[in-house]
Amino acid sequence: MSPMDLAGVLAPIPTPFDEDGALDTTRLRAALTRWVARPLTGFVLLGSNGEAVMLDELESDRVVAAAREAIPAGRTFIVGTGRESTRAAIQASRRAADLGADAVLVRTPGFFKTQMTTDVFVRHYTAVADASPVPVLLYNFTALTGVNLLPAAVSRLAEHPNIVGMKESGGDIAQISDLVSGTPDRFQVLAGTTPTFYSALGVGCAGGILAPACVLPDACAQLFRLARAGRDAEALALQRQLLPISRLVGGSTYGVAGLKAALKIAGYDVGMPRLPLVPAPDAALAAIRDALAQFENVTI
Amino acid sequence: MSPMDLAGVLAPIPTPFDEDGALDTTRLRAALTRWVARPLTGFVLLGSNGEAVMLDELESDRVVAAAREAIPAGRTFIVGTGRESTRAAIQASRRAADLGADAVLVRTPGFFKTQMTTDVFVRHYTAVADASPVPVLLYNFTALTGVNLLPAAVSRLAEHPNIVGMKESGGDIAQISDLVSGTPDRFQVLAGTTPTFYSALGVGCAGGILAPACVLPDACAQLFRLARAGRDAEALALQRQLLPISRLVGGSTYGVAGLKAALKIAGYDVGMPRLPLVPAPDAALAAIRDALAQFENVTI
Amino acid sequence: MSPMDLAGVLAPIPTPFDEDGALDTTRLRAALTRWVARPLTGFVLLGSNGEAVMLDELESDRVVAAAREAIPAGRTFIVGTGRESTRAAIQASRRAADLGADAVLVRTPGFFKTQMTTDVFVRHYTAVADASPVPVLLYNFTALTGVNLLPAAVSRLAEHPNIVGMKESGGDIAQISDLVSGTPDRFQVLAGTTPTFYSALGVGCAGGILAPACVLPDACAQLFRLARAGRDAEALALQRQLLPISRLVGGSTYGVAGLKAALKIAGYDVGMPRLPLVPAPDAALAAIRDALAQFENVTI
Amino acid sequence: MSPMDLAGVLAPIPTPFDEDGALDTTRLRAALTRWVARPLTGFVLLGSNGEAVMLDELESDRVVAAAREAIPAGRTFIVGTGRESTRAAIQASRRAADLGADAVLVRTPGFFKTQMTTDVFVRHYTAVADASPVPVLLYNFTALTGVNLLPAAVSRLAEHPNIVGMKESGGDIAQISDLVSGTPDRFQVLAGTTPTFYSALGVGCAGGILAPACVLPDACAQLFRLARAGRDAEALALQRQLLPISRLVGGSTYGVAGLKAALKIAGYDVGMPRLPLVPAPDAALAAIRDALAQFENVTI
Repeated sequence: MSPMDLAGVLAPIPTPFDEDGALDTTRLRAALTRWVARPLTGFVLLGSNGEAVMLDELESDRVVAAAREAIPAGRTFIVGTGRESTRAAIQASRRAADLGADAVLVRTPGFFKTQMTTDVFVRHYTAVADASPVPVLLYNFTALTGVNLLPAAVSRLAEHPNIVGMKESGGDIAQISDLVSGTPDRFQVLAGTTPTFYSALGVGCAGGILAPACVLPDACAQLFRLARAGRDAEALALQRQLLPISRLVGGSTYGVAGLKAALKIAGYDVGMPRLPLVPAPDAALAAIRDALAQFENVTI
Repeated sequence: MSPMDLAGVLAPIPTPFDEDGALDTTRLRAALTRWVARPLTGFVLLGSNGEAVMLDELESDRVVAAAREAIPAGRTFIVGTGRESTRAAIQASRRAADLGADAVLVRTPGFFKTQMTTDVFVRHYTAVADASPVPVLLYNFTALTGVNLLPAAVSRLAEHPNIVGMKESGGDIAQISDLVSGTPDRFQVLAGTTPTFYSALGVGCAGGILAPACVLPDACAQLFRLARAGRDAEALALQRQLLPISRLVGGSTYGVAGLKAALKIAGYDVGMPRLPLVPAPDAALAAIRDALAQFENVTI
Repeated sequence: MSPMDLAGVLAPIPTPFDEDGALDTTRLRAALTRWVARPLTGFVLLGSNGEAVMLDELESDRVVAAAREAIPAGRTFIVGTGRESTRAAIQASRRAADLGADAVLVRTPGFFKTQMTTDVFVRHYTAVADASPVPVLLYNFTALTGVNLLPAAVSRLAEHPNIVGMKESGGDIAQISDLVSGTPDRFQVLAGTTPTFYSALGVGCAGGILAPACVLPDACAQLFRLARAGRDAEALALQRQLLPISRLVGGSTYGVAGLKAALKIAGYDVGMPRLPLVPAPDAALAAIRDALAQFENVTI
Repeated sequence: MSPMDLAGVLAPIPTPFDEDGALDTTRLRAALTRWVARPLTGFVLLGSNGEAVMLDELESDRVVAAAREAIPAGRTFIVGTGRESTRAAIQASRRAADLGADAVLVRTPGFFKTQMTTDVFVRHYTAVADASPVPVLLYNFTALTGVNLLPAAVSRLAEHPNIVGMKESGGDIAQISDLVSGTPDRFQVLAGTTPTFYSALGVGCAGGILAPACVLPDACAQLFRLARAGRDAEALALQRQLLPISRLVGGSTYGVAGLKAALKIAGYDVGMPRLPLVPAPDAALAAIRDALAQFENVTI
């Protein structure tokens, strides 16, 4: 498998913090040792669920270095390097490449919302892709950034030889379909939300970066295989089975705290979210246990 | 075919107005004569694209009566009867049934947005379904109403014996999937937007009520058949081919004016929209012609 | 006072329904007999708080006729006649004028949101104002309609001799200020929300149409007088005193149900909201009593 | 004047970048030398208009150090230190204090929108205020962050002895009024948008942090004085005169680029925005010149 074949399921790895809120790369390496044994296509460090916005640049580098140690060559290792300034996004991408990232995932800038036009996005990503030593993935997450990287911008950017794909975290299947049909085959679109994964594969997505894949990697990978094999009824049934857990981990209800709580239940030790985020409430734990219990017969 | 098997493609029929803005039922009957010859599962009168909110109650009745004359028994004939008050929705549903409607499509009330809770929706639809002589379809169109009929409400309402399905006009495939999986098999979910139609069928929708089906009934019906037959690649290709026209007719760009302009080009005479809506601009006509030209080999 | 001097406080009168949901004009006349004894500039029937969207055309006419009987000449009597179609808005305005309305308040159409451009609004209101036998007030309520009648459109419309003012129900004081400064002095802008009333007067509004004025007419009128007299500290104190009740009646929490509940407590008998709206819950009643108790020393 | 009396007008100072996008503290000091000669209450560095999100931590420190050199003791010097993590906000606040800031302005975290509850905000700001060596100002800018620091949260936080006020950048005058009335007199609310400034002072705000104050410091300061002196008609006239320029600098049309362009016209050399932001287009320059020409008789 070429490192840049993104077909399949990638896991957005959370960043462990200890009880004092300090970055804990020991826990990160330990958890990754387990994840790399699962049938996952790759690993995304420092994404939204990786609390990237909570880390300073030095901590970011430590995460990348630690992950590189734990992830074997041949498994795709992607690092989130989105920043508000073009300059900082370039610097972060170069540092990630230096530290061994196979590709970078660059979230749209979004602070100055009204200024983020298609032209601005095209210029930003072109500059990052020109400068990045490793391939670039675009990353659109409108619900969090308040800006939308439209298919028209993506079509233009897909012509850049160093832009190899994107993650689309929205649930609008028409927009996802547009992204696929408006770009060449070599440009790989990855779904970012589990409840749309089955449908996203149906309109031509290459795979997904899915929070539940941290907790239920085998089930998520199996959903991908079933869909690819045209076993639609089984795939749809598994997609529906994944719905409750996908609402509880990484989604809008409990967010990262839900993901970290689920991982603790599943035996991964990734600590707590960093303040001001707080651990998931007890009600969440019960709901997560119930949702995971649906998968007793699936190896987790 | 039982009239209440909604599988397939239904057309949301526009309401013809003459040059003075008067309702023109002669044109309506004439156009329906052509539509009933196409492979459409049924016809929805007085929906959003039927400019229902532009008509008074007497005009609404005239539309229903005229359509009933033109639509043969055995073809599903659905009438939009949503109103802001429960009382008015019941009255409109009874009158539509008296005038021959097979079912009614009841858009959520939405003026008093903050008061439209799940309980309020359940009470409203239960009262309408209790009183309606014909089966009731729920209708959720958040982009126009500003309220969202959530899957939790639909699950409760799907237990009512006189509520047989719903039209969901949103593009969130996760919500559409929830609607299907949270209701019994007898409850039929219909997609309301063409760009999501293929994916909606993939997660279990029974069919769709699609504005392009007025202009390209054969192509839309063919898309349904391909998807049902598991001919996914062909279905997806046709879905993509339909995308440009679906943006131009009945969507957010030109709305009803786009639909009426396209119908004029396709040889249907349904007049102009009612004021304050205005005819589509010349730029729209050229774009519509281009989009329709993609379908020269399809019988329109 | 000329009937078209709108300076001061107007009350948006709710429409009484009996226990069966039937329109009750007897209760309406009885309540108006009390309201006309209070220092209110005028009365708005069939506005949002009048549940206008819940009534059919015949019921609307009965409300206007009943109110005309109860409101003496010399007190401004305004009727809401907004409809989605230009034609229906004209017809409703003519009927209201025939039945004795001094002016009509025409809410923006808003169902086909994306089509409601400035040009469309200008054409719509110009046609209504050309045809209306009585003066026209524009009415912008973005939170309910989802469309925004911008100052640019209002500036153009303010040149029409039969358009004498507007009600702006939004809370953006910059937009309110723009509406005043972009229109001639004869064009009177009325605030539609109590929490912004004091500030709206400060930037040049002529008055307000305020739901709390139904329950606390003297206090609201006193706020107007204090502000006009430049007694800013007293005005601001009274404005703040009105805040709790303004949140409970006619606002986003309990809406019309809150207004009707407060009126019952204050001794007005205007029945219940029409379904699907439901009476305010018990928790609302206690909060409303507390908020009204702040005004024991004010004659209510 | 005590440094923490914030009454009056403060200027949100832009951060100069040179043609290569490098931070240019020489230009910053030079421009500040001119600003400190104007009748401004104080200066805010590293706010939104200071492109704070475009700078790394080291650059931030250099801005603070340079500004401290240029701003004389006795003029309030405020530094923006908002970060997504509580830990980083504390560190930035401590560093700003070490480098001479009189107070810190802490924008709400907002990346994980759905997790930002009132409790989370209270915990975050309490921790920052506990740790900050200098007084803390809260900062709410919903249009950019997508989260809303509600009056209920502010009321609780205003009890903290080290939290002395806030900047509210929204235009909802009812919310601004709530912030004032729900906090003790020692808690100073500052308006963040020029079009609401006059009204904000009317409901009790202490002053404003206004982008036009960089370009027209005397006019903005005069507006404050007129409003405070009860010269309402003159104040309102000046407020209206400031409207066109306030739309062009720092607002949603041209943002920081508009502010920097206006400053260049006014003779301040603060360079260009940092990429991906781009300089204001030529059309903006003409509009800015027109808007500034309204103030020929005011010393700029």
